[in-house]
Amino acid sequence: MRITDVVVTPIAFADPPLLNSTGVHEPLALRTVVQLVVDGGVVGLGEGSGERDVLDHLEAVRTAIVGRSVFETGLIESIVFSKLGPDVSAMRKRRVFSILEVACLDAQGKLLGVPVVDLLGGAVRSWIPYSAYLFYKWAGHPDAEPDEWGAALDPAGLVAQARRMVELFGFGSLKLKGGVFPPDEEIAAIRALADAFPGLPLRIDPNGAWSVETSHRVASELSGVLEYLEDPVLGMDAMAEVAARASMPLATNMCVVSVETFAEAVTKYPVGVVLSDHHYWGGLRHTRELGALCDTFGLAMSMHSNSHLGISLAAMTHVAAATPNLAYACDTHYPWNRHDDVVQPGVLRFVDGAVPVPTGPGLGVELDPDALDRLHRQYVDSGRRSRQDTVYMRRVQPDYDPTLPRF
Amino acid sequence: MRITDVVVTPIAFADPPLLNSTGVHEPLALRTVVQLVVDGGVVGLGEGSGERDVLDHLEAVRTAIVGRSVFETGLIESIVFSKLGPDVSAMRKRRVFSILEVACLDAQGKLLGVPVVDLLGGAVRSWIPYSAYLFYKWAGHPDAEPDEWGAALDPAGLVAQARRMVELFGFGSLKLKGGVFPPDEEIAAIRALADAFPGLPLRIDPNGAWSVETSHRVASELSGVLEYLEDPVLGMDAMAEVAARASMPLATNMCVVSVETFAEAVTKYPVGVVLSDHHYWGGLRHTRELGALCDTFGLAMSMHSNSHLGISLAAMTHVAAATPNLAYACDTHYPWNRHDDVVQPGVLRFVDGAVPVPTGPGLGVELDPDALDRLHRQYVDSGRRSRQDTVYMRRVQPDYDPTLPRF
Ligand SMILES: [Mg+2]
Ligand SMILES: [Mg+2]
Repeated sequence: MRITDVVVTPIAFADPPLLNSTGVHEPLALRTVVQLVVDGGVVGLGEGSGERDVLDHLEAVRTAIVGRSVFETGLIESIVFSKLGPDVSAMRKRRVFSILEVACLDAQGKLLGVPVVDLLGGAVRSWIPYSAYLFYKWAGHPDAEPDEWGAALDPAGLVAQARRMVELFGFGSLKLKGGVFPPDEEIAAIRALADAFPGLPLRIDPNGAWSVETSHRVASELSGVLEYLEDPVLGMDAMAEVAARASMPLATNMCVVSVETFAEAVTKYPVGVVLSDHHYWGGLRHTRELGALCDTFGLAMSMHSNSHLGISLAAMTHVAAATPNLAYACDTHYPWNRHDDVVQPGVLRFVDGAVPVPTGPGLGVELDPDALDRLHRQYVDSGRRSRQDTVYMRRVQPDYDPTLPRF
Repeated sequence: MRITDVVVTPIAFADPPLLNSTGVHEPLALRTVVQLVVDGGVVGLGEGSGERDVLDHLEAVRTAIVGRSVFETGLIESIVFSKLGPDVSAMRKRRVFSILEVACLDAQGKLLGVPVVDLLGGAVRSWIPYSAYLFYKWAGHPDAEPDEWGAALDPAGLVAQARRMVELFGFGSLKLKGGVFPPDEEIAAIRALADAFPGLPLRIDPNGAWSVETSHRVASELSGVLEYLEDPVLGMDAMAEVAARASMPLATNMCVVSVETFAEAVTKYPVGVVLSDHHYWGGLRHTRELGALCDTFGLAMSMHSNSHLGISLAAMTHVAAATPNLAYACDTHYPWNRHDDVVQPGVLRFVDGAVPVPTGPGLGVELDPDALDRLHRQYVDSGRRSRQDTVYMRRVQPDYDPTLPRF
C-alpha cells in the first residue's frame, strides 16, 4: 500500500470559445493528470488545474510523498502544507493536495475493491443530477471552423444551445454564464429560457461583473424566475447587500471559497447556497466536511465546475453521492469537453441530466493511455502554460476591459 | 457486504463509587454492545449507552437496517432518523446511530483488511494520549469491601489516586471531576496536584455545579494552574460570562453538544475547547467533521468520556488518530472499568499515558464472548435499566440535593 511514484502529466484539450466576464476560453484548456503508483501496481488517478504553479508544487512535494501509505491522506496533506512552505497560500496548497487526495482514494478503492463513494460514507443517491452549463459563445474560434454548438450571442442563440444540451443530455436545470453582455440582454436571455423551458430551474452567474445597484435591479426583474443568483457582485459585504434585498437565494463560488472565508460568511450571511468544489476545498473528504459546515449553519450546497475531464467528473459524482445536503443539481463543463477526454468511454454518461455513480473499484473510470499521450503532446506543442482569457479576447477585441464590475 | 443481523446486547459492568455533582456512580454501569452481522460472517462491533431508550431505539430500527450494505452509513443514518420519527430528538438519534456507525466501520475494516483509522483519512499520530480522570470517591460501595483505589475525599486522597493512575498508566495530564465539595476544597486539591506533579497539565470539570460568581473566583484563583476549565457553569450565556474574565480557556461537553448548539456557539464564543464524543456527535465521521468545524472557527478540540469499555476506547483511539486538530489528551474512564471489559486483552494498553492505534482490521479489537455473556447476565440479574446517580447517593445521604448550581 506504499506509494512508489507520483507521475504528473500536464495536458491540453479542445475547448470552445465560451465567453465570460474576463474574456473567452482559448482553443485549448489546460489540466493536470496525476497517476499515483502503489507497490503491487495499482495506479490511482487524480485531475486538477493545469496551471504552471500547480505542476511546480506537485513536483515539489513528489519525493516526500513517495513511500507513504496510500491511506495516509491526512499525513500527506500535512506534508503538502509543510513542504510548500509559508509563501504558498493555504488555498493553493489545497488545490495541490486535492489532486493527490483523489488519486489516493482512487487507489484505495482499487486496492480494496470498493467504489470511492463507499470510502466516504456510502451513496445516499445513485444518480447525480447536473445542470446544463450554458455559455454565450462565438460560432467557432477565430480562423477556425464553427464548432458543433454554433454561435450563441443573443436569447435565441442561447435557447437553441439549451435545446441541444437538453436533447443530448436530458438536463433538468439550466445555468447561464453571464457578465458578458449588458444586463438587460442577459435578463432577456433568462426570460427566453424560462419561456422555452417552463418549470426548469434557472441560474445565472455573472462572476461578479455587476455593481450592487445593477444586481438589485436584476434580482428584482428576475424575481420568481431564478432558482438562485450566483456571484452577482464581488466581495462578502457587497454580496450581503444584494442578498438583503433579493427574493432568491444568492449562491457563490467566489466569496465563500475556503474554511477561512466560511467563518467570515457566517457572521455576514452573504449567501444561501455555497458552491462546493473539491479541487478548491482540498479533496473529497474536505468537501464532505463542507457539507457538514453548511448543514450546521443552515446554508444550502451546490457544486461549482471549471473546465474538466472524466477523472474529475467521476470524483465530483462520488462525493456528491455521499453528501446528503448537496441537493442542488451540480455544475459541469463536461459536455463542452467530452470529446477530448482522458478516460475510457462508457462509465460516465448522462441520462435525464444525471450521471450514475460509478460502481467499479475506486473512481470507477479507466485511463486511456493513448488519449493521455495525445493530450500531453498537445500541451507540449501548444507552448501554453496558463489560462489567459483576457489576452485571447484582446486578439479579437483589442480594447477589451475585464475590470469588474463591468456593468 | 449486506447486513444480515443486528444483535443488541445490554450489559452491566463493575464501576467504583465515583462522586460527581449529581451523586455517585452505582456498583454497575450500563452499556450496550452491538454486533452487526454481515453476510459471509464478518461481525462489526459497536458500543454505546445502555439506557433503556437507546435499546428500544436500536430495536426499532433493526429490521430497517438489515439488508443494507455495511458501507451505506449515510443511508443508515437517514433510516435511523426517519424511523425514530419526530418525537425523538436529533441528539438521541445520533446516540443510536453512532453505535451502528462504529459497528459498520469495524465491519468495513474487517471486510477490507484495513484498520478503521485508514477509512477516516489515515493516522496523523500513532499513539493517542489520554488524561488521568481523577474522581473524589468513597473507599468502596456501601456494604462492600474497599476497591483497589481506596478513598479520595480530600487533597491527599486525590494525590494518592493520581500517583497510582500515573504509576499504572503513565498519564501525562490530570483531570479532576469536581462539583462535589465546596470550591475551596477543590481549589486546594488542584493546588496539591500541581505541587505533586509539577509540569503536568491540570483540568477540573464541575459539570456546571458553580454559579458565575463562584466560577470567576475559581478561575482567578487557579489562573496559571489550569490547562482548561471545563463546564464551570450551565448554559452558553453563563459560559460566555465566565470566559470573558477567565485567563484559561473554557472547555465544554455540556453547552456545545451538537451541530445545532455549535452554530449558536460561534456567535457567543463561550468556550475555547470543544470536547468531542463520537457517541453524541453521531459516529466517527461526524467527529472528524466536528474537527473541521472547530478548525474553521478557531476552536480547540479535546475528547469527552462516559464510563465505557474497550470497543469504545478503540473507536475513540481511531478517530483521535485521524483528527489532526484533536490535540489535547483525551478523557477516558477506562482505568476505572478495565477489569470488566468485553474485549480480549492485549491490543488496548497504556504506555506513557497513550494508547497505540490498533493496527488490526477494523477497530482491531476482538469480542470476548464469555465476558459478554457474563456482563449480559449481570445486566439481567441486576434489574437496573437506567443510570441513577442521585437515587443511589440518597441511600447514603437522604437529603442530597443535586440542583445546580450547587456552589
Ligand atoms: Mg460561479
Ligand atoms: Mg465534562
